[in-house]
Amino acid sequence: MKVIKKIDELKDVLKDFKKEGKSIGLVPTMGFLHKGHASLIKKAVSENDIVVVSDFVNPIQFGPNEDLEAYPRDINADSKLCEDLGADFIFNPEPSEMYHDKKAFVDIEGLSDNLCGARRAGHFRGVCTVCTKLFNIVGPNRAYFGQKDAQQLSIIKKLVFDLNIPVEIVACPIVREDDGLAMSSRNTYLSADERKAALCLSKAIFEGEKMAKNGASVGEVLEKMKELISSEKLAKIDYISAVDLETIKDVDNFNKDTLVAIAVYIGKTRLIDNFIYEV
Amino acid sequence: MKVIKKIDELKDVLKDFKKEGKSIGLVPTMGFLHKGHASLIKKAVSENDIVVVSDFVNPIQFGPNEDLEAYPRDINADSKLCEDLGADFIFNPEPSEMYHDKKAFVDIEGLSDNLCGARRAGHFRGVCTVCTKLFNIVGPNRAYFGQKDAQQLSIIKKLVFDLNIPVEIVACPIVREDDGLAMSSRNTYLSADERKAALCLSKAIFEGEKMAKNGASVGEVLEKMKELISSEKLAKIDYISAVDLETIKDVDNFNKDTLVAIAVYIGKTRLIDNFIYEV
Repeated sequence: MKVIKKIDELKDVLKDFKKEGKSIGLVPTMGFLHKGHASLIKKAVSENDIVVVSDFVNPIQFGPNEDLEAYPRDINADSKLCEDLGADFIFNPEPSEMYHDKKAFVDIEGLSDNLCGARRAGHFRGVCTVCTKLFNIVGPNRAYFGQKDAQQLSIIKKLVFDLNIPVEIVACPIVREDDGLAMSSRNTYLSADERKAALCLSKAIFEGEKMAKNGASVGEVLEKMKELISSEKLAKIDYISAVDLETIKDVDNFNKDTLVAIAVYIGKTRLIDNFIYEV
Repeated sequence: MKVIKKIDELKDVLKDFKKEGKSIGLVPTMGFLHKGHASLIKKAVSENDIVVVSDFVNPIQFGPNEDLEAYPRDINADSKLCEDLGADFIFNPEPSEMYHDKKAFVDIEGLSDNLCGARRAGHFRGVCTVCTKLFNIVGPNRAYFGQKDAQQLSIIKKLVFDLNIPVEIVACPIVREDDGLAMSSRNTYLSADERKAALCLSKAIFEGEKMAKNGASVGEVLEKMKELISSEKLAKIDYISAVDLETIKDVDNFNKDTLVAIAVYIGKTRLIDNFIYEV
């Protein structure tokens, strides 16, 4: 396992593997790896000859009032985990290696107007741009994304389709702590009290999913989830929405692949969670 | 030489050549090929094992009041020329094969704010998006662009650099008719009188370049070019500008790589021409 900081070095190293016909899996991350990332890396290792984990806190997907500086980093722990899981390379560039004057960009209309995209101006432009760059640098056969960032996953799939990017996008299920909280690097921000309060997200997700399966309407499900989260006094709802998984447009009824997604502030920490209901 | 209409068919055909380690050259065109395109194709044939000429009138780079419908097309003549020049494939997709609902896009800030970009809203977004798609579909080692579309060439180079697209951009010089008019598919729009009047562009370019070489200032050069074009009564100046070739920002003095670019309406036909002055 090797940590690579430079684009050209990574390209050079991968060129030889490609010539030999080896398949390459890419796991794009912002580092501070947890069990959710580990599940992506494991799957990538099982499906590809060579696995690259990118470990880059991408500045252009953070808004001016967001947590870019505070975002947790630990390249040593990340390297250890990647080594243990059988990944081959960590790509850990400096921001100056990835961006110069930031003129060219990639963005998407429609799918970024709702949910996190509506609340985090420029966020998905930053995500689309960095993922396009990583796809071009690594040239992977497959790239692995977590279902926890459901809107991101839908956007990346559409981006790859619309721009004919030659990569297969592999979606991996949400990984949770034993008590239900979805794994997130941002969970590290939570105080002990906030950590307890954060359980309101997964409780609402589990209850909403159960109600949907039992035939409740979208309105009933969202209402109940809102009630559950509102009863937690450290929680402040950012959004609770039901959308079409492909278009990320609001839906009034459960149709084919409905995404029920929530974003909730626990103190100053913004957490997300979701479930997908397939009719 | 084969005409291919479908993305998947082209990718399939090229996959085998790539496995064999063959190099691939791409010449992106909107068809109705002339001697300018021919020079790009010849260069591509001389430098690559396999040459793909894309022949696609890209609807998303035309504004609502531009000449999308009128733009000349002749796939049979194009096929004959490509065959004669030794190209291997023409990629000639329908618009519906290239675009579905047009959500994802690629664009560039700064370089598209001046010259043609300032006058043709959305034009370079369309160019950046279709070129990114073509690069992803074909996966060329090299792609060939004409210096006549100088702003486009600067933008494509920056796009490839910023997004780490793994392709070498090869620039080819302007090809002119015997009397000086720069080759363009749009020359076919000109009436006999307009064809004569159109010579004011190349006359101004040649005179401007000579003056620059002889030490004239940017102001003197632009003034003289304006005078020459204004004296032609069928001509209407859209712009006459001197810009930095890399940034496409206006310059007051000739510095390293100054692009002097003009756009002129001859009747209803908008023509462009340019020279690059290297200090």
